[in-house]
Amino acid sequence: MPIDFRTDPSRYRHWRLACEGPVATLSMDVDPAASLFPECELKLNSYDLGVDIELADAVQRLRFEHPEVRVVVLRSAKPAVFCAGANIRMLGRASHGHKVNFCKFTNETRIAIEEAAAESHQPWLAVLHAPAAGGGYELALACAHIMLIDDRRAAVSLPEVPLLGVLPATGGLTRLTDKRRVRRDRADVFCTTEEGVRGRRAQEWGLIDELVPPSRWEDAVAARAGALAATSDRPAEARGIALTPLERSITDTTIDYPHLHVALDRPGKRATFTLRGPDRAPADLHAEGAASWPLAAARALDDAILHLRINEASLGLWVLRTEGDPATILATDTLLAADDWLAREIRLFWKRVLKRLDVSSRSLIALIEPGSCFAGTLAELAFVADRAVMHAGAEGNAPARLTLGACNFGSYKMGNGLTRLATRFLGAPDAEAAAHAAIGQALDADSADALGLITESIDPIDWDDTIRLLLDERASFSPDALSALEANLRFAGPETMETRIFGRLSAWQNWVFQRPGAAGDAGALHRYGSGTKPEFDPERV
Amino acid sequence: MPIDFRTDPSRYRHWRLACEGPVATLSMDVDPAASLFPECELKLNSYDLGVDIELADAVQRLRFEHPEVRVVVLRSAKPAVFCAGANIRMLGRASHGHKVNFCKFTNETRIAIEEAAAESHQPWLAVLHAPAAGGGYELALACAHIMLIDDRRAAVSLPEVPLLGVLPATGGLTRLTDKRRVRRDRADVFCTTEEGVRGRRAQEWGLIDELVPPSRWEDAVAARAGALAATSDRPAEARGIALTPLERSITDTTIDYPHLHVALDRPGKRATFTLRGPDRAPADLHAEGAASWPLAAARALDDAILHLRINEASLGLWVLRTEGDPATILATDTLLAADDWLAREIRLFWKRVLKRLDVSSRSLIALIEPGSCFAGTLAELAFVADRAVMHAGAEGNAPARLTLGACNFGSYKMGNGLTRLATRFLGAPDAEAAAHAAIGQALDADSADALGLITESIDPIDWDDTIRLLLDERASFSPDALSALEANLRFAGPETMETRIFGRLSAWQNWVFQRPGAAGDAGALHRYGSGTKPEFDPERV
Repeated sequence: MPIDFRTDPSRYRHWRLACEGPVATLSMDVDPAASLFPECELKLNSYDLGVDIELADAVQRLRFEHPEVRVVVLRSAKPAVFCAGANIRMLGRASHGHKVNFCKFTNETRIAIEEAAAESHQPWLAVLHAPAAGGGYELALACAHIMLIDDRRAAVSLPEVPLLGVLPATGGLTRLTDKRRVRRDRADVFCTTEEGVRGRRAQEWGLIDELVPPSRWEDAVAARAGALAATSDRPAEARGIALTPLERSITDTTIDYPHLHVALDRPGKRATFTLRGPDRAPADLHAEGAASWPLAAARALDDAILHLRINEASLGLWVLRTEGDPATILATDTLLAADDWLAREIRLFWKRVLKRLDVSSRSLIALIEPGSCFAGTLAELAFVADRAVMHAGAEGNAPARLTLGACNFGSYKMGNGLTRLATRFLGAPDAEAAAHAAIGQALDADSADALGLITESIDPIDWDDTIRLLLDERASFSPDALSALEANLRFAGPETMETRIFGRLSAWQNWVFQRPGAAGDAGALHRYGSGTKPEFDPERV
Repeated sequence: MPIDFRTDPSRYRHWRLACEGPVATLSMDVDPAASLFPECELKLNSYDLGVDIELADAVQRLRFEHPEVRVVVLRSAKPAVFCAGANIRMLGRASHGHKVNFCKFTNETRIAIEEAAAESHQPWLAVLHAPAAGGGYELALACAHIMLIDDRRAAVSLPEVPLLGVLPATGGLTRLTDKRRVRRDRADVFCTTEEGVRGRRAQEWGLIDELVPPSRWEDAVAARAGALAATSDRPAEARGIALTPLERSITDTTIDYPHLHVALDRPGKRATFTLRGPDRAPADLHAEGAASWPLAAARALDDAILHLRINEASLGLWVLRTEGDPATILATDTLLAADDWLAREIRLFWKRVLKRLDVSSRSLIALIEPGSCFAGTLAELAFVADRAVMHAGAEGNAPARLTLGACNFGSYKMGNGLTRLATRFLGAPDAEAAAHAAIGQALDADSADALGLITESIDPIDWDDTIRLLLDERASFSPDALSALEANLRFAGPETMETRIFGRLSAWQNWVFQRPGAAGDAGALHRYGSGTKPEFDPERV
């Protein structure tokens, strides 16, 4: 059974979402019996991918369906625990690939929580009335403010190293050093102390923001939620956009959504995405809601990425194609540039979807052909790709063309804080200005090549052979070496907390996830809870 | 047989060093029969750790023994090849730990080549008269200027991904994107094209700096060497300092150098370094030369680090102790601060040695005890450590004390471009100013704790038990998880090309080095040259 990323609050097994005016409360109440892996009991609000899929859905709906929500209070519905982190039995049983994908998705969701605060002015408040361990504390770290009750029991901890022989890898280490700037020796003590840190020391070390005695707890939570809500500019009177169920049909060789067709070629180890541009620019984004092209197409692309990542791991090459009328997508982009909460949310959603592509461990090849629609927002697919090759001719009246829009110079920043064009032209700053001057021009292959926007312009007579050779050759290389290569080449320029999470931290965790001391039969993930100590090779590498 | 990092030009098997006034020529001429692994033939100037040990020695001697050298011309003595990179047979046979250590050491050496240009004004010139592949091109990338002959044969290439299923991991990917700012799609094409790139395309893509026709080759090399030499401020009339053979005696449980004692505790899985401060400040650094304390102690520490890293992998915990008179090390530091080429070289050497500790995959615990000498340069050992614990009492007249010097605020920057104190206090900038105001004060444990300079002050009555528990607990954790933890916590703050090489790039390469497609029996490293294609798991992770 493929894992399905589509859900909605009526189907949640693990969370309860309640909105009252500007304050939403999201309560974690994991159903121990409802794991994706039937043999793993999700005790103590521990989570697996299924729990996190619901969390990601809630993050998304709070932004689109609840423009009036100005603060999200994240609580636990279990009396004795906030959250015990990722389920250890699941980590012990899951394949290497599942573990890596699980961490990637959970990291993306936590970064989306931070983006909600920074860009949509919808901060999250972590309310720790009881212990938050491992991934539970990492979830709190993604919030704008962490409150901890000052009793003898409530503590924050990252016990992965002493207990499990792996890293806290949902951004915990990076958020300690980069976001909270915890002194490195204190971070070392904290991460090697199984029981964690509580009370005044947690506050003094900067592990939490606010320590509250039990007698004032609920009042303090309400006051803090109110204070955070007061900082937001979200529109109190606006009506949300319902994220209606996403239509999708899957066969063995195709996946179809309203604006996206994905062809699966298993012998060729590739999936070809064909994204169709809008037939017309939306008359009114608010009135059309989830049916409007920019929102529907982004949802389709997001779902296809997530589905293929986890359910189709052997399709190592994603070919990116587009179809449609460049003028219509440029007109749609103009609507998206409006100073309006919904336009902002849709822009930010495209930004997140494109960032999912940046961190997908798949080779990305964009084919810019006659009849294609690489313009504005969709032109970004050419810049997200490891290579973009362009047909130097026409079919009938429709030559291949690439059209830049203003959005390519600001709306869709990568994790490194730069646009893809700025990253592309780090070594040639004049090239970015030249590209900017070409906004709105339908560039043919020669012009796009001269501006440095594509990898290669290909003569029509050679197109079929060249593309076939390129895709076949790529599919013949070591999938692992390509994943590692792409992860190093895609992020030139500045590093941010986000690029460090996906670069340094994730790479180390992936390394540990293969080590016998963690993942082996006698390793810590398998031996956890068995009463038998794990076996470690004493050699340092 | 342990691997020995001590050598000198009279013993080189693979290099020839010739100095003529301001120009040194270092010629690579690898002896195929002289590999560290007898079964690996080092054809085509391919290299193993033994070749790189000699290179590192040459880098070091050029700086100390040849103040007059203003440019180093790096050539190959083989007519048909510049350098074919790391020996593939060696990579296929070596243990995971050896491969990781090999890459770490080669990376440190290439960064030292760049530091020679930036800090000692002794730039290296890469002279590629023939193909430079993989690690061969990565060696050129570390030079200040790359010349390529424009014939049909000479090319630069990074064929690791298509040929071997691993990464170019001696900084190649990072130097392409960060140092040379090669456009990412071109970097992708380059790194997946086995035969590499030559001629004008190599220049247009920024892979080299200068393309020269064969008819003008030697003249152009001489002219470029002259031009680089002209930019240097190195003293033409100075006399070099001979790096005399390093005295060392090793038993099963000890390693001794003139100023350093290392005790090896195999059951406890630890090594205890005791570095003795100077008996007196040197009267004249130039006259005392290699015998002077600052140079002799740095050489001892450097050798001990390298020896333990590769020959004592099961000692996962390094305890850092000092002994001596703080006043004398502070007086010595004053000499090192002089505006003099030798003082500069010794400071830079300490900087490099301390950086080796930063990237050593060992837990580092500093013990600040009565009679210790954590002052100035040696205080840096407390800041390099993952934790520094301090004795809160005295023995006789000698209380434990920590004394800051000006050097702790500027001389010894980490790979991230900041001092260790600045990195430590990223979250508390006022703390750095308070520490600066305490320069020269002999701080007791309470004062050091109040200034945030130590992890913990420990009561004398608890000292023995606390230290024993701390060291035993650390030794009980997963060695891999600790390596990964420490690599993430040691480098808060900005990223540089250097931290990216050791963080992102090395972590990905270490991951790939464990994957069956690379290191397995049917993997690319083993199958290389066998005529049988490697087997890859098609799943992307």
